[in-house]
This record gives sequence, structure tokens and C-alpha cells, in this order.
Amino acid sequence: MTVPELIASIRPADGAARAAARRRWDSIAKPLGSLGLLEEAVERLAGASGSPDVETAPRAVVVMCADNGVVEEGVTQTGQEVTAIVAENMSTGDTSVCAMARAAGADVVPVDIGVARPVKGERILQRCVRRGTANMTRGPAMTRAEAERAILTGAAVARELKEQGCRLLATGEMGIGNTTTSSAVACVLLDQPAVTMTGRGAGLSDAGLRRKIAAIERAVAVNAPDPGDPLDVLAKVGGLDLAGLAGVFLGGAACRLPVLVDGFISSVAALIAARLCPAAVDYMLGSHASQEPAGTLVLEALGLRPFLFAGMRLGEGTGAVAVMPLLDMGLAVYREMASFDDVKIEAYQPLGGEDEC
Amino acid sequence: MTVPELIASIRPADGAARAAARRRWDSIAKPLGSLGLLEEAVERLAGASGSPDVETAPRAVVVMCADNGVVEEGVTQTGQEVTAIVAENMSTGDTSVCAMARAAGADVVPVDIGVARPVKGERILQRCVRRGTANMTRGPAMTRAEAERAILTGAAVARELKEQGCRLLATGEMGIGNTTTSSAVACVLLDQPAVTMTGRGAGLSDAGLRRKIAAIERAVAVNAPDPGDPLDVLAKVGGLDLAGLAGVFLGGAACRLPVLVDGFISSVAALIAARLCPAAVDYMLGSHASQEPAGTLVLEALGLRPFLFAGMRLGEGTGAVAVMPLLDMGLAVYREMASFDDVKIEAYQPLGGEDEC
Repeated sequence: MTVPELIASIRPADGAARAAARRRWDSIAKPLGSLGLLEEAVERLAGASGSPDVETAPRAVVVMCADNGVVEEGVTQTGQEVTAIVAENMSTGDTSVCAMARAAGADVVPVDIGVARPVKGERILQRCVRRGTANMTRGPAMTRAEAERAILTGAAVARELKEQGCRLLATGEMGIGNTTTSSAVACVLLDQPAVTMTGRGAGLSDAGLRRKIAAIERAVAVNAPDPGDPLDVLAKVGGLDLAGLAGVFLGGAACRLPVLVDGFISSVAALIAARLCPAAVDYMLGSHASQEPAGTLVLEALGLRPFLFAGMRLGEGTGAVAVMPLLDMGLAVYREMASFDDVKIEAYQPLGGEDEC
Repeated sequence: MTVPELIASIRPADGAARAAARRRWDSIAKPLGSLGLLEEAVERLAGASGSPDVETAPRAVVVMCADNGVVEEGVTQTGQEVTAIVAENMSTGDTSVCAMARAAGADVVPVDIGVARPVKGERILQRCVRRGTANMTRGPAMTRAEAERAILTGAAVARELKEQGCRLLATGEMGIGNTTTSSAVACVLLDQPAVTMTGRGAGLSDAGLRRKIAAIERAVAVNAPDPGDPLDVLAKVGGLDLAGLAGVFLGGAACRLPVLVDGFISSVAALIAARLCPAAVDYMLGSHASQEPAGTLVLEALGLRPFLFAGMRLGEGTGAVAVMPLLDMGLAVYREMASFDDVKIEAYQPLGGEDEC
């Protein structure tokens, strides 16, 4: 399969299934629309899966692990050896997202899509496209063919998980330097200056932030990526984790498997997927709002609304996994609650807010 | 016990336990502070319970059910008979919060603290103080003695649940007309005009909103509650559900049982409790942000930060129950994650945002 073939296989969401979900919500004995974005999320899941009988389990978080040559520029505090170590800890269940996923009833699927050194671990999917990207301040991070291969790899992972029974995916990543590449891609695709799209995070000094912005500006100037060609942008100033995640979004859309967007990095991958195929957005769900201001801009560009604002910035897919139980609770009301007729109350409209039915 | 005795029994949270929780977070192999408000919530739970070995189960949502005489003024769309029907549905598990609580592993404890007609149901706690309040636009909603009795009733419910093993409570309510009383109390305690503190909700017409604001203004003018005397405000322009919930907050604080604040109504009850005893805030946790603008003002007055912004306005405690699994997931990382030493990574500071460790 080629990337154009993958894109051509994506259909818009099922409007009839989504409308049926909306009708189900409106029949439930509670003020209309009173579960807010949880109702919208269930509707989106119905449209994506093609049925109002929405399921959110079995489910998994796909963690794309890759290294980024740009770390040579001193834009990070630790070296890229940390990527491999954390990837291996994913395999043994010893990272933050693993603990959260156990609590949320989700599997963790770490994928080596381009870690600088080989990573060991039974549960790691060995799908390395190349051992880390090149330093994008000196030339393209990877070739266009490599970017395409990484996208198809991510799409294949989504398809395999769907075939294994998964009904919902979350997207996660691990890759030292990947906020630098994400900011670079977001700059080009949203036509924004690096200074707007680059975050200080919790601890970046003024000097560190200047170095990071300068690296992004240099990478964009050196490579001159074409904003109208998402693959060109991805290959020149992106990363293998971004490419793999863009593939998960496209692959999920192609096989009608809804995919939760995580934070900044994941949302940039979602934007790449959306630029390649706008219909893929129908299969995406917002989760949490990253602390990074650029994260909000990217989600707005996608038209997705996050509902968790907890100031999380851990990565690994933790924000996307965090909202899974919220979806379950919305779904519990959707599935179990009686209609107005059943509970002997006339249908009511909300009047003045909570409980003032 | 009297209300002054209840208040006198409340101690500030355990600073040592809270600091120990902070130290535990800082030792965990992930960027410092990267779980944001989930980390703060676990710290608060440690301070409240008096131990860094935080538990969030068994847990329950206490749903205070009561009627409000002000509904005579046409401030609601349905009659007060709905309060009793929904309270009875709470007993059989047939309301939205019941479905969500099943998914979240929480018990639902409906309390008849003042429904207009007797309510039937095995699981309803029969603690009626009076059968609905009087119409506050014509005089006090209840007597000061009744308000005190309702507070002590709520405190006793919290204490009984603690004795039964509960480690975390959520607050919920059911009472037609209770955003009108909540807005009235908030107006007086925060010295704001009714027009600022009164919400349109999802469906209130201009005429309905004017009627609601006028009723609040009349109630405040007729009763002239003393802003410096929270019990006076509660008795004159409050409700039995607000009083019962204020009692749950105070009772929880007295027996070191943390209590989740829900939406607008619950946060106004929390504000009453805080005005009676500022140390009670140490035992409160924010959950979701109500759609009502006044809800945000009240939470700010309490110094509590919600993290779920899903546009929910269902009431019943649904917002507070919704965040329970989020606390569980934060706690999973807190309990299960290895330290930096264990995972062979040097302690790192976040640099540029997610994953850029």
C-alpha cells in the first residue's frame, strides 16, 4: 500500500450512526445536552465506528518511540539515550503511561519506529524505519520515502490493533527532542513564527528557549519545506514518531477505529494527517489541553475540543489515556439511563443551569 | 453536637503528610510536576487524610435532595414534584449519577434532607429536616435552627460514611429551584449583584432569566441577610440541600475525609462551609468547572482549581464523580512508578514541554 492509496481508502464518518446517537441522548431522562462534551464524544465515536452501539474497549495506547537528530543543537537537557531507556521501560510496564493505562484498562503498545539504538523488550513492536533522524538544521530530517514508510507503518499498527479487537486507540510518544520537531512542523503548517509556536515548558531558561527557537528557524530556512505538501514538511523538519502517529490517525480512519489525540506532539501529528486527508479528523477525539500555547492553536486548527485542563505535560499518551474513563462514564449514562417515559417525568429542557430542570 | 462544636473540631490539614506526598512525586522518574493538577490533588488528599499513603476507595457520592419554596415564583420549568421522583430513582439506581458512579466504583447515597413530599426507597437516608423551604421572596426560606439542623445532619452523614470505611466523598444534589437559591447565597457572600451571579443555563429565555434575577433580588431585599453571618444567609435565602452539603464539607473536614466539590450548587455550599470554618477548605477538592460564570467566581473565592471543562451541567454530583477515575490514575503513577534510581535515568527537569525531558 502507498500513502495515496491509504488516503483514498478513508471515508467520512457515518452521519446516520452519529445522528442515531444524538437521538438516543435526547431521549434520556436528563436535561438536554447536560453532559456537554461527553455527549459529543459519544456521538463522534458512533460516527467513527459506524454504529450507535458505541464500545470503548478493548483499547490501547500506541506509543511511537523515535530519536531526533536536532538534539545535537542543544535544545534538550538530556541526551537521546533516554529515548531507548524509556522505550524499554514501556515494555516492562514501568512508565507513567503504563501505570495509568493499567488503571484505565488499556493496553500499552510501544513501537520502535526510529530509536537511535536497538531497543529490547518482548512487548515492543520492532518497526524501525531508520535509527533516528538527521539533524534538521543541516538538511532534511529524513527522506520523503522514509516519512511515507513511517506513516504506512503507523497505519499498519492501527489496522492490526483493530483486527485484534480494539475499539479505541490513544496516541502517545517518546522521543527526546520531539517538541522541537513538533513546533517546526506546526510553524510551517500554520504559517506562524517559531517564537509563537515554541514553548518554554516548565523549566526552559531564556537561553534554552532562544536556542530552541533558533534551531527551528534554521531548520525551516535550510530546508524550505512546502507548506502545501504535508509530506515534504514532515520529512524535512518532522520526526519518525510524528510520522508514525500521523499513520495511526490515517490508519484508524481507514478502518473506522477512533483515535484519541494526546497533547502537543500528538496534535501536530493529527494536523499532518488532517492536511493529508481532511476526512481523517472525523475519527479523532480531543482529550486534554497541553500547557503549550501552540497546542491549543493546533487543536483549534483541527476543530477538536479538549475537556481535560489539568496542566499535564508528561507525554507518553498520558492525557489521552486519562480521558478514557470519562468516555466510559458518559457511555454508562448513554447505555443504561432510562428514557423520559420510563422514569415518569415529562421531557424537560434545562432552564437555569444544573438541576434546575 | 452544635454547629459551633462541629466547627471547633476541625483542624487544618496535615502539612507533614502533604509534604511527604510532594517528596514522593519529586522522586518519581518523570519530568517534575508533569502531571499538573493530578499531582496537586494527590497532595491535597494526603494532607486531608493525614497520610501520604493515599486511598480513594471505598468512596461515595452523597446526593442531598430538597425542595425550594421559591419555585412558586416561576423560576423553573418543571414543578417540584420532579425532586421526589428523581430522589426515588436515585434509590433504584436509575439516574445519570448512578450510572456514572457504577462506572467509577462509587456508592450513591441519596439523602432526603427536605423534599416536599415523603420519598420512598430502601437506599434513601430519611433525614428530612422540613418538607421543603418557604418561598424566600416573602420571608426566610427556613429558620436558623432548621439550617443548623440540616448542617449537622449532613455532617453526621459524612461521619457515618467515614466510619463505614469511605476514603473519599463526592457531593451531589437534586432540588428543583436550587440554582436560584445558590445564586442568591453567592450574591450575598461575594457581594455581587444578582445579574452577575445568575445564569441562563442552556435554555432560559430572556423573560425567564429576568424573573429569576428579580426573585433573587426580592429575596435579598425582603430578608436582608447579614453577609458576615453565613448561617443567616443560608437560612434566609438558601436551601436545605445547600445546608446539608455544607454539613458534608464540615463533617468531612472534622473526620479527615476529603470531599470533592461538584458544580455551582455544591461550590456555593462549600463557600458557606468555608465562611463558617476556613480550615474546611483543606479537605475540599475541585473537580469540574460549571458552565455558569458564577461557578468559576465561587471556586476562585475558595482557591480551588477544577480540571474538567466538559461543559457539564447535569448536577446530581456527576462532575465530582467524573473526576474520581482521574484521581485513581494520578494515584497509580504515584504508587507504582519507579524512582529515578530504579530506572537508571538521572533526575531530569522538564525543558521544552512534553517529553522533552
